[in-house]
Amino acid sequence: MTVRAGIVVTGTEVLTGRITDKNGPWVAEQLFAMGVDVAHITICGDRPEDLTAQLRFLADEGVSLIVTTGGLGPTADDLTVATVAEFTGRPLQLDEPLRDHIADIIRRWQGRGGSESASAATLAGIDKQAMIPQGAQPIPPTGTAPGVAVPAGEDPRARGRLPAVLVLPGPPAELQAMWPNAITAPPIVDAVASHPDMRQDTIRMFGLPEADLAEGLRAAPGRVPGFDQLEITTCLRRGELEIVTRYPTSAARDYTALADFLTELYPTQTFSTDGSTIDDQVAALLAGRLIATAESCTGGMVAARLTDRAGSSAYVQGGVVSYSNEVKINSLGVPAATLDEFGAVSEPVAAAMAEGVMARLGVDTAISTTGIAGPGGETPGKPVGTVCFGIGVAGRPTLTRTLHLPGNRAAVRERSTTIAFHLLAGALRAAGASS
Amino acid sequence: MTVRAGIVVTGTEVLTGRITDKNGPWVAEQLFAMGVDVAHITICGDRPEDLTAQLRFLADEGVSLIVTTGGLGPTADDLTVATVAEFTGRPLQLDEPLRDHIADIIRRWQGRGGSESASAATLAGIDKQAMIPQGAQPIPPTGTAPGVAVPAGEDPRARGRLPAVLVLPGPPAELQAMWPNAITAPPIVDAVASHPDMRQDTIRMFGLPEADLAEGLRAAPGRVPGFDQLEITTCLRRGELEIVTRYPTSAARDYTALADFLTELYPTQTFSTDGSTIDDQVAALLAGRLIATAESCTGGMVAARLTDRAGSSAYVQGGVVSYSNEVKINSLGVPAATLDEFGAVSEPVAAAMAEGVMARLGVDTAISTTGIAGPGGETPGKPVGTVCFGIGVAGRPTLTRTLHLPGNRAAVRERSTTIAFHLLAGALRAAGASS
Repeated sequence: MTVRAGIVVTGTEVLTGRITDKNGPWVAEQLFAMGVDVAHITICGDRPEDLTAQLRFLADEGVSLIVTTGGLGPTADDLTVATVAEFTGRPLQLDEPLRDHIADIIRRWQGRGGSESASAATLAGIDKQAMIPQGAQPIPPTGTAPGVAVPAGEDPRARGRLPAVLVLPGPPAELQAMWPNAITAPPIVDAVASHPDMRQDTIRMFGLPEADLAEGLRAAPGRVPGFDQLEITTCLRRGELEIVTRYPTSAARDYTALADFLTELYPTQTFSTDGSTIDDQVAALLAGRLIATAESCTGGMVAARLTDRAGSSAYVQGGVVSYSNEVKINSLGVPAATLDEFGAVSEPVAAAMAEGVMARLGVDTAISTTGIAGPGGETPGKPVGTVCFGIGVAGRPTLTRTLHLPGNRAAVRERSTTIAFHLLAGALRAAGASS
Repeated sequence: MTVRAGIVVTGTEVLTGRITDKNGPWVAEQLFAMGVDVAHITICGDRPEDLTAQLRFLADEGVSLIVTTGGLGPTADDLTVATVAEFTGRPLQLDEPLRDHIADIIRRWQGRGGSESASAATLAGIDKQAMIPQGAQPIPPTGTAPGVAVPAGEDPRARGRLPAVLVLPGPPAELQAMWPNAITAPPIVDAVASHPDMRQDTIRMFGLPEADLAEGLRAAPGRVPGFDQLEITTCLRRGELEIVTRYPTSAARDYTALADFLTELYPTQTFSTDGSTIDDQVAALLAGRLIATAESCTGGMVAARLTDRAGSSAYVQGGVVSYSNEVKINSLGVPAATLDEFGAVSEPVAAAMAEGVMARLGVDTAISTTGIAGPGGETPGKPVGTVCFGIGVAGRPTLTRTLHLPGNRAAVRERSTTIAFHLLAGALRAAGASS
């Protein structure tokens, strides 16, 4: 049996959407990699009764472990430890060595000589952070807030067993630094002890409709012996299909059979079976080359995505954002006549942009985009979502493509950026194969 | 009484941390602005029993509205509508006009002549997506998946009333485009009808440490009469401090007193009290101007953020991503001697980049960035995080600034982009004030 866990993220700023939670996904990924099945993530604000309701929900769902994040600060509205203590029926007790340890950290941060100079507010905060539920184990702070590992035990309300609870701080850097100590705390080790060895692998495809993949997967059970052992999820993201399969290590051969089946069925659409992203592949294909971008509708997003990567200065020379026709003409050398004859959103202009940026920036590889991201700007025969691409590889004819993309302005721009990466990878692979 | 709502985010890819959910925070922010109190956000995978458990939890917690996101695709593992139908005791029924509408959308995207050419898989997917719980109202698709608004009603298991359920698609662009129609669907209007008048206002500051703001806020109760009525949360995001206050309309005068108190206390750091973002302000300040970017460490992110906005072609001429020194010299006219003498990451180079892009692209406004985003690349006296900015406004001396930014590569690049916007806004305001 797989161990199931729940994650409770606390914080009004997360609940109200003002900041995006990073802890839930991060903890989920860590637990998942440990073979623990995260069944639920819940987010609540700073109201103790909502937090209690979520703890109750997860306990009733039968999870073996609850991980909470946030609400460990020194101020009165940080109530996670007190709420967990109440929920598990374990009175709070002052942990004196922990108090001294926290006081020590704060002294060092404040650069002060002794605790006598700390304010009453600071001292009260230290005492608060050193209160631990009876029988629980503190996890040394990486900021000032310690974590707490509460063992599984009897429900004080006689509703059966309660899961172990791991209480972690909210700042992602503190939480992540504390994680190795947290998962080796005995109450947590006990809770996750019984998990089997699970693996997870990813296949990525591009240009395949989701419905077609679904049809392919329906045929898979007849072709893959241990299909039942494979837990497959598919996800369409930025135009790419991601097929993630989780399986016990004992079913590794069955997973290989599935991967072979799918890659044979969709040979041109499968671009990754080893976990690599298209960004990883483009970076590898650009080794030893120099690339420049010429962007209109993506307005710099292709260059920004290429340079997201540490070390990209080895192959990214630069680029031109030619949002206006003047820049296309003056900075890229697109002939005004080509713009007049075909319009800015056309394959001849995309080709001229790619060729122009290669010549002007002295590179051997280029990618260009010109399109109508919307909401306005459509012309007869060129609806919003029409995007033309140009791909230049030195010594080979410039390739062009026109696509009609769905969605609003942000979606068209993001999808165009992903497509640019795929077109580039395809052209570089073709160039590599024929050279 | 405030209306309480819950949000259920579905998707194994979100639950397992492979992708960060954007829908929960976005929907929470919209509901919050409508005066609806989001009590819980829950995330589950593609198991219908986990989704049912979360719906049950939220109904038991007494929320008036549940919003679900995701699980509306054409494939068999997309089960949200069927699960909600089962939960609310409303059998699924084929909505024929909706089916024809979806088929129409798919035909247009595929550019095919008629439905007879659609695959059996596609047709089955269309039928699935057009199945709606009895008595529910479809919300027209913005991608291919329609939304569904299920009215509040009796619990089929006789456990009291069930809340209204709004079922929305997973792709953020589709969901956001559908929102205006979703919240005006009668079942949703009925569910949120009874909320009291709550307002929410935001003050944004830049360049103020969070601890200083906390100190200022501690002094506020003595200066703001109805301080108790104001629910204030503060959040540090991308170097900006956001102070969000929620209050009953009857306390509007008290909020004004708070806003006046804070803006008087931090006059130079407060840049917005009317809800506008720095992007809104830069767009307004650029009206009637033409801007170009010259980016090194931000690699196109400033241009991409400027052109995120519909209508930005009125003032964005384009830009140069000068990642290498050759591009700085050849495309921007930065003197090689300046690069040699001061290094690429220096104020003289930032100034030359801004001036160069103004001259080459024929614009009256320019912003440049050159810095060390890391992890490598630091030189003596220039640690990772050192970023120089240049701001050119025609007829005024070019301004330069050097900042040392914390965080990893992505943080430095993102923070630099935000700072570029603030420096630009400051320079344009100064130019406007003196002209």
